[in-house]
Amino acid sequence: MNDLVRMTAREAVRRLAAREVSPLELIDAAVERIAEIDGAVNALPTLAVERAREHAARLTASGPPADAPPGYLHGLPFAAKDLKDVAGVRSTKGSPIYAEHVPERSDYLVENIEAKGGVVLAKSNTPEFGAGANTFNEVFGKTRNPWDTRTTCGGSSGGAAVALATGQVWLATGSDLGGSLRIPASFCSVVGLRPSPGRVPHGPKELPFAGLSVEGPMGRTVGDVALFLDTQASGVQAVDPISLPRPERPFVEAVNAPHGPKRVAYSLDLGIAPVDSEVREICARAVRLFEGFGASVDEDAPDLHDAEPIFQALRAAQFAALYGKHLDSNRHLLKPEVIWNVEAGLALSAEDVNRAEAARGALYYRTAAFFERYDILASPTVLVPPFDVDQRYVEEAGGVRFETYVSWLVMSFALTLTSCPSISVPCGFTSSGLPVGLQLMSPRADEAALLSAAALFEEACGLVGNVPIDPIVRHSA
Amino acid sequence: MNDLVRMTAREAVRRLAAREVSPLELIDAAVERIAEIDGAVNALPTLAVERAREHAARLTASGPPADAPPGYLHGLPFAAKDLKDVAGVRSTKGSPIYAEHVPERSDYLVENIEAKGGVVLAKSNTPEFGAGANTFNEVFGKTRNPWDTRTTCGGSSGGAAVALATGQVWLATGSDLGGSLRIPASFCSVVGLRPSPGRVPHGPKELPFAGLSVEGPMGRTVGDVALFLDTQASGVQAVDPISLPRPERPFVEAVNAPHGPKRVAYSLDLGIAPVDSEVREICARAVRLFEGFGASVDEDAPDLHDAEPIFQALRAAQFAALYGKHLDSNRHLLKPEVIWNVEAGLALSAEDVNRAEAARGALYYRTAAFFERYDILASPTVLVPPFDVDQRYVEEAGGVRFETYVSWLVMSFALTLTSCPSISVPCGFTSSGLPVGLQLMSPRADEAALLSAAALFEEACGLVGNVPIDPIVRHSA
Repeated sequence: MNDLVRMTAREAVRRLAAREVSPLELIDAAVERIAEIDGAVNALPTLAVERAREHAARLTASGPPADAPPGYLHGLPFAAKDLKDVAGVRSTKGSPIYAEHVPERSDYLVENIEAKGGVVLAKSNTPEFGAGANTFNEVFGKTRNPWDTRTTCGGSSGGAAVALATGQVWLATGSDLGGSLRIPASFCSVVGLRPSPGRVPHGPKELPFAGLSVEGPMGRTVGDVALFLDTQASGVQAVDPISLPRPERPFVEAVNAPHGPKRVAYSLDLGIAPVDSEVREICARAVRLFEGFGASVDEDAPDLHDAEPIFQALRAAQFAALYGKHLDSNRHLLKPEVIWNVEAGLALSAEDVNRAEAARGALYYRTAAFFERYDILASPTVLVPPFDVDQRYVEEAGGVRFETYVSWLVMSFALTLTSCPSISVPCGFTSSGLPVGLQLMSPRADEAALLSAAALFEEACGLVGNVPIDPIVRHSA
Repeated sequence: MNDLVRMTAREAVRRLAAREVSPLELIDAAVERIAEIDGAVNALPTLAVERAREHAARLTASGPPADAPPGYLHGLPFAAKDLKDVAGVRSTKGSPIYAEHVPERSDYLVENIEAKGGVVLAKSNTPEFGAGANTFNEVFGKTRNPWDTRTTCGGSSGGAAVALATGQVWLATGSDLGGSLRIPASFCSVVGLRPSPGRVPHGPKELPFAGLSVEGPMGRTVGDVALFLDTQASGVQAVDPISLPRPERPFVEAVNAPHGPKRVAYSLDLGIAPVDSEVREICARAVRLFEGFGASVDEDAPDLHDAEPIFQALRAAQFAALYGKHLDSNRHLLKPEVIWNVEAGLALSAEDVNRAEAARGALYYRTAAFFERYDILASPTVLVPPFDVDQRYVEEAGGVRFETYVSWLVMSFALTLTSCPSISVPCGFTSSGLPVGLQLMSPRADEAALLSAAALFEEACGLVGNVPIDPIVRHSA
């Protein structure tokens, strides 16, 4: 059984397609693994095992579609982030307000993955409304980092990253406003890809034309993430008014036959962050691996100096729009960070937001100009390694005090603003055995180039043979 | 010579490609026609004849590219709307502030069309900053409707529409926030297509992530507009962070082998406008033509009841962002409508804009649901026929008083909010001989379906053989 949970998602899908293994066998293997390990980490607080078994039985009975689309999963179980509704399954958004919410209909993202042969096995834990990058909430408590259960797994797709790292599922969905697909990937030594806005169509939401918050795939390898991006990137969909057409070729092809970037730029702090010295050293060593396949590697970055005020204004405005309605009726059920963020948004004028949008535009153009000179930008994903799980957020680093619970995420949210896709790939461990991720970014809409570079890096880094599954064992050893 | 200006753009490009006619001959033909006619209408107040001749000579010397891209123009002269910079040519935006502005570099849109073998021959007149749908300004004065020079040509791409209708150019660029590609097309009996946001990449601008204002093509036939959309739709470009990938097939193919819509819905007022009775009658007759190629034609429309407050809020916020800077330094050089619009935007809170964005989202979802039942929505483009050129805007129609200079554009700006592409196609004339346009809309990003339906309609309508060229003669006859 354990051999099954150790497979990559791609291998599992290959064997499912060849009928060498059945969806039900994979569900059983995952359930066994969850029973064994999740008590120590709390990644998947809500299971949907019977629903999964019924779905798997239906899939097995009907067989695969005559013309399986790219990213078809042939019955592979996956974890859905608890921000997304799953029909008939408790879907809390990590908020006491929705603690008992059982929706009748799944979110579009879930429906689409199910239509592509994915089977929801569990809901993964998330901070309240996905706010903040430490995964704890009043409904399910905290999710722990399997590499050291005293530390945080990051967030907001924290349960997803931990479930992957501990072999509870082969794939997991995530979402990303300020780094929520990348930060937990970095902290747990898995892979998380933030796509370009519109690449993964989202379901109905309050502000459907806003592109800062995106859905995306997480997995244990770059190839698995490419596969799951193919599943999710369903092209122009009526449900999403900014959805992009399907790529010309499936993303897995970029991983199967990767073309290395010619010109890699790296910055250990993006010019904007007090990055931990050990994180710097690990990333500085890692980026040199690009030289091994013929790329130039230069220290350089686009000018991102005003990323924080821009992001804080746009985030606050969005929080006010999404959660302002809870302030009156359910204030006592909101965590203080969410209240602060909503109130910051309510205090803004249209001009404040316009100024932020205009500054974001200028930041985008600087980034576009940067990509005339480089193919890939590399940086640390997070400015610190995993920290105490009971610390709500990083309040200080390198002598710099952070004023808000968002500020320490600047390495990732600065790249959010560019609208370019970015990915976090494992690149090493601190002397304490804690994971460090390297963040790569490509030009907008070119996820193929990003995955190609990430696949080559992953192979060169050698951590591909070190797929996390038993990190807790590893740490206590 | 006159035979040359009567050709469609597609025919002209075919003959240019076959070397049956040269770019210089077309420039000479257009210059002769401009000299003959533009004094009566003032469509092209700025000419760039020497620049065009030099460009044409370079193109002729170098020959066509080995692999001409879709929409390649082989030296065809066109008019650029005066909102867009053209290197070395006076580019005023219709504003006294920029009356003497001669930019060193062209806007991206112009550069792209030039790269595709288009030759800038002239700048077309526009209202100040494109604000309002009557084409007059303090720099160049008013542009007149060639079908009756006492009436307005509409706007803001008014000079473009008139230049086409009078045979001064074969193609013209336009742009559209609240209807600026569609309204003048309707008033002048030509074709204007508002693409989905991102379909035509735009050059650097203050709010590059905002998709309400788009660039697009205008021509005398649907086929010409399809050709020019192919020219402009250059795919994902670094210069535009919301640009869409190229279509799988060139848009001209949709016109060459059109597939008719199966289910056409029409509304003579979209449930929101006091539409003139003669306009209603002409459009009601015209939509029946869809039955001729097997479509069902039903009276129906998405719920657009709150289009005006949404559009007014989003437009005002954008005006504040774009032109607020002129209020202090150049207030005396702004027209009162622009001042009003900027001040309305400066008074908004972030919450006001969020509310409008959320309502726009709901409107989008209603439209998406509507398109599950229909392939095409048809309606009048404008609620009145062309009116007195000296009236700044429509203050009253059908007993309804309009509170702002924007309100009467509701038939077109309501569709702007959906992010779906729309087109205005000539569909008849009033008893006074004034043109009326039919507005068609397809689901988002499906310009091929829109052009296909428009091409079939155009042919059925019979106005395709009635290409405007000598409308002034026609009127005075």
